[in-house]
Amino acid sequence: MPVINPPKGFKLSVTEAAIKAPGRKDLALIYAEDFATLAATYTTNKVKAAPVLMDMVRTRHGKARAVVINSGNANACTGEQGMKDAQATASELSAHLGVPEESVLVCSTGVIGVPMPMQRLKPALKPLAAGLGKADVMDLARAIMTTDTFPKIAEAKVKVGGVEGRVVGVCKGAGMIEPNMATMLCFIMTDLDVERDALKGAFNWAVESSFNRITVDGERSTNDTAMALASGAAKNDLIRIGSVAHKRLTDALFDVMWKLGRMIVEDGEGATKIVEIEVDGAANDKQALQAAKAIANSLLVKTAIYGADPNWGRIISAVGASGVSMKEERVDIRIGKVKIASGGLATGKLAAAAEQMKAKDIKIKVSLNIGSGAARVLTCDLTEKYIKINAEYTT
Amino acid sequence: MPVINPPKGFKLSVTEAAIKAPGRKDLALIYAEDFATLAATYTTNKVKAAPVLMDMVRTRHGKARAVVINSGNANACTGEQGMKDAQATASELSAHLGVPEESVLVCSTGVIGVPMPMQRLKPALKPLAAGLGKADVMDLARAIMTTDTFPKIAEAKVKVGGVEGRVVGVCKGAGMIEPNMATMLCFIMTDLDVERDALKGAFNWAVESSFNRITVDGERSTNDTAMALASGAAKNDLIRIGSVAHKRLTDALFDVMWKLGRMIVEDGEGATKIVEIEVDGAANDKQALQAAKAIANSLLVKTAIYGADPNWGRIISAVGASGVSMKEERVDIRIGKVKIASGGLATGKLAAAAEQMKAKDIKIKVSLNIGSGAARVLTCDLTEKYIKINAEYTT
Repeated sequence: MPVINPPKGFKLSVTEAAIKAPGRKDLALIYAEDFATLAATYTTNKVKAAPVLMDMVRTRHGKARAVVINSGNANACTGEQGMKDAQATASELSAHLGVPEESVLVCSTGVIGVPMPMQRLKPALKPLAAGLGKADVMDLARAIMTTDTFPKIAEAKVKVGGVEGRVVGVCKGAGMIEPNMATMLCFIMTDLDVERDALKGAFNWAVESSFNRITVDGERSTNDTAMALASGAAKNDLIRIGSVAHKRLTDALFDVMWKLGRMIVEDGEGATKIVEIEVDGAANDKQALQAAKAIANSLLVKTAIYGADPNWGRIISAVGASGVSMKEERVDIRIGKVKIASGGLATGKLAAAAEQMKAKDIKIKVSLNIGSGAARVLTCDLTEKYIKINAEYTT
Repeated sequence: MPVINPPKGFKLSVTEAAIKAPGRKDLALIYAEDFATLAATYTTNKVKAAPVLMDMVRTRHGKARAVVINSGNANACTGEQGMKDAQATASELSAHLGVPEESVLVCSTGVIGVPMPMQRLKPALKPLAAGLGKADVMDLARAIMTTDTFPKIAEAKVKVGGVEGRVVGVCKGAGMIEPNMATMLCFIMTDLDVERDALKGAFNWAVESSFNRITVDGERSTNDTAMALASGAAKNDLIRIGSVAHKRLTDALFDVMWKLGRMIVEDGEGATKIVEIEVDGAANDKQALQAAKAIANSLLVKTAIYGADPNWGRIISAVGASGVSMKEERVDIRIGKVKIASGGLATGKLAAAAEQMKAKDIKIKVSLNIGSGAARVLTCDLTEKYIKINAEYTT
């Protein structure tokens, strides 16, 4: 496998802290050689993990030097001790790195409600800091995995004047994924020099258009976090809000996040198919999104997709139950290239639609034909394996 | 099996119309010897089956003579032809019965988007009418089943003066069940004489407190219907709104519907466990219900229950994502008799809680401790079998 280096200005490290079980790298460090510009978004769940609460405050500085990420324990529902543990992790690491304590962010993912095993995590921080530069992006992507079956990395390039900057993203997530927020752990690094507000604007738009449009199981984690760090080491002209370069950066962030989001759906727990749900002709974009999400989160639709059954009755029923404005007699439904329902009625093309359902990539398009609102959502099917994974993953 | 006769004033019949596949009774008739007082509630899905649309209009009369029910085809998403078919069914049957066309209601359940096979249904209506009196309540309960694995019947008695009236209910439903509306096909017959408004009030309250508090998969059907018919053949003093007898009738309706609702959850597609979710200490009752439903519909909670895993982190996370007011540090969670979380923190009683999770009947209680709102919801676990049933049930 080719080595994927982080963008200029960043160094990576991974190590084993045996947080859940020994035998795999479960602790990772993203280190910025100088203060990196920071944008981040966190879960909207009212129950937020301790590191999320800590990071939310530290994000206000708009700058960071390091992000330490552990998998295996979420440090959520762990009370005051959990907050102390997150702070101690940052504090200890900041000493090893020689950076201000507040410039260190902590991200955790794994089981909820179990105290962080600090007796194992703490001793691992020194070798973690000492190992900086020895890990590549693939090592980072692997260390943050939990139920993921493959590491998730995407990259895009952005030209700013004579400089070509890199945007490199990694993420983890395969379950507990739901739209309408940052939906998993995601770390984007770029060597570009970007004004804070420009980074924030580009990042938020890209998150809204990518991660907030995917759903595996409609769940929302206590730890969801997405961050972008810009080192400026590419020495480009500072990217300011509203500039052409800003537009390019936004596109690059979206490109990277959409690819990562697609990988999450592809890796959806137990998933065998990846499904793009498009709704158009809705009263407005918001209602289109609402309808698309209702279809994407319907257990009956998801199981029908698994069974390769072009059951458009379940699709139109999900739209009807979603609360959006619709007229049954105007609804057209397409599965892949086949129009399975026209004006709310069966077209009789069941066999052709069933053929389309056999693909691994499926596209379902619902046209409400009452307005011009449109939205697109990515999801996966629901299989016995999802049940198995989540019934057997014990606290 | 003992014969369960319908209440006085009703006659039943069942027959085979081979609507889906030959070999089982799939057509049933409830006949009132004189005009019965009628209350009914229908799906809130914007996509409503043709018979639902027809019945909604006919329900306004507040009286009915007959209800014909077929299983195997929902007559939903069938357009104008679907409405003609529902009307033709009522019209043809009314001729055989010698009752006004508008006094006949039609209920359908089964596959969506497929025209009703009228060539098989129509010829079955004459023998259906001719067979009146030959079927008992068990036959009726069996004939309306689709993916149900057992017939669902409940009964209660109501004393009004010197008269003891019977309230007998049957229902069907095992999937596509979601709270907040009439949630399946349910038919309640009573021989009591009840004022229309008294029946309507008692019926609506009982539906809201029973069927609207159960959920299997968060789905909402195009055909959900619940009705109550009161024949008056018991010759009691007319039950008027606000009377003691009215209170007793309401309790009896609730009793019957709660039992039927529990049976639906018990028969939830693929379910192995029945779970009562109670939320108290919420800001108000509405928020308590919202939180309870969020827990009940969380795939991660449902799979954890299947795995007998006392994963309270998933429970508190579902509450956090539900949007209700809460303070993590005040939340107590009980599984059966075991307090698994106190003040938002683990109590360490995992083994004892795991023991409680092994039962077939499980109770989860979440105390938010911020107000006095409370609600109770019934649900079931989510298993590989649900996936199998719904992936293989083809159009």
